[in-house]
Amino acid sequence: MNRIDDGPVVLAEEHAHAWSPEAARARFRAGLTGPTAGVAAGHTQVNLVSVPADWAYDMLLFCQRNPKPCPVLDVTDAGSWTTVLADGADLRTDLPRYRVWRDGELVDEPTDVLSYWRDDLVTFLLGCSFTFEWALMAAGVPIRHVEQGRNVPMYVTSRQCRSAGRLSGPLVVSMRPVPPDRLAAAIRESSLLPAVHGGPVHCGDPASLGIDDLASPDFGDPVTAEPDDIPVFWACGVTPQAALAASRPPFALTHAPGQMFLTDTRDDQYRVA
Amino acid sequence: MNRIDDGPVVLAEEHAHAWSPEAARARFRAGLTGPTAGVAAGHTQVNLVSVPADWAYDMLLFCQRNPKPCPVLDVTDAGSWTTVLADGADLRTDLPRYRVWRDGELVDEPTDVLSYWRDDLVTFLLGCSFTFEWALMAAGVPIRHVEQGRNVPMYVTSRQCRSAGRLSGPLVVSMRPVPPDRLAAAIRESSLLPAVHGGPVHCGDPASLGIDDLASPDFGDPVTAEPDDIPVFWACGVTPQAALAASRPPFALTHAPGQMFLTDTRDDQYRVA
Repeated sequence: MNRIDDGPVVLAEEHAHAWSPEAARARFRAGLTGPTAGVAAGHTQVNLVSVPADWAYDMLLFCQRNPKPCPVLDVTDAGSWTTVLADGADLRTDLPRYRVWRDGELVDEPTDVLSYWRDDLVTFLLGCSFTFEWALMAAGVPIRHVEQGRNVPMYVTSRQCRSAGRLSGPLVVSMRPVPPDRLAAAIRESSLLPAVHGGPVHCGDPASLGIDDLASPDFGDPVTAEPDDIPVFWACGVTPQAALAASRPPFALTHAPGQMFLTDTRDDQYRVA
Repeated sequence: MNRIDDGPVVLAEEHAHAWSPEAARARFRAGLTGPTAGVAAGHTQVNLVSVPADWAYDMLLFCQRNPKPCPVLDVTDAGSWTTVLADGADLRTDLPRYRVWRDGELVDEPTDVLSYWRDDLVTFLLGCSFTFEWALMAAGVPIRHVEQGRNVPMYVTSRQCRSAGRLSGPLVVSMRPVPPDRLAAAIRESSLLPAVHGGPVHCGDPASLGIDDLASPDFGDPVTAEPDDIPVFWACGVTPQAALAASRPPFALTHAPGQMFLTDTRDDQYRVA
């Protein structure tokens, strides 16, 4: 069970970019699924990882030691399904789709995790690069995967994260093809938002990251590039999922790649200048 | 024992700005003490907090929930006195002066902590605003406390940090008087370095932060301002010390305010754009 098969249901919806985060969460709670790139313009999207309290220090330290892929925007108290980032939200139901992990194996991909919830779960909400796509678009950078109605392509790289306690694993990246004359804008605009991965970790040859074939992403969908486009790679919040697979904690919940939690926070709040 | 009385010994040294971080650490290891503003130009300075492993998750979560005062640049494994930020350094000896805390009370201010070291101590190294003073100077912002050979003034504010587990306490800030025509540069340059506190938390009237008298800082020295200067307040890495005093963990070690650990890391490495 390595891929999500339920397609771009969200992106097929009319005016998803104009939804409020609250309205988006209500639709996901009601069962709508699919990638959330392009949804609720200007609002911060986040990755979700819930681990038993016994693993919370290792996860928080893993995030601190790998801030590019794992920028922590909130950590809940054990058992809590609320967050300061979204008033009235329920982290157990308000994402389009979840993943359930046992001993590092993906065992289910439900649309809510009410039946899996445990009182000892500590939930980490990590910034997502979908957030800076609005700033890129405003600076004239085309977002090909949104234009093509697909999920962003994500790749497991050959770079290892810095380990923390029992957690280790490879860096995962997302990729956006960028026209050469928009590369500077893409780097500048994303760099000013370090809380949602900041500037890219690599531009150009995918082989430098150990990626053999851009047409075969490990998560998400392949995206069609224009001939002159430069592939630009950003650290990705799916990185903790690769660490779960490599490090095999007994239990964890995550979002499904590309199907993020929509917060009420404006992306401008995380802009450093 | 609220104030450090050993004065600006470092700043009286010739050419301290040109020292390498390694040379600075060697001098502090040999017994030199005093504020480190202006030492080892262009290198990242950090605050130190060591707590027993039992308190490490609370401290890391406190830092995550209060990233402006507590930007975490490294966390050691329990018992380790080395850091990835400074090759060959010994965190027990290489700071000018330390503070020793028992049950939230300051009990000693030694120049090394060899006799206090414990195998269960986890050490947090947090970015320090002395780091961005080089960028401010390069942008034409005068650093009054360095010009006057004093420690930076620091104040406990009326703003509470977001609590984490057993840790809570007020925000501590440092203050620099900035000429009005340099205010934009000071804000811009510090904002681009979020890992060392980033942009200011407040400019202008100290009463908004619950500060009664700029001439009576809680830590460091008062600084003389020019008539038109605007007081600019940045979140300060002494904030965890205020949390120790308020939350009373059984044991902790910290740096003495203004007497920082010099890392090998260039401040440019933390510049986001």
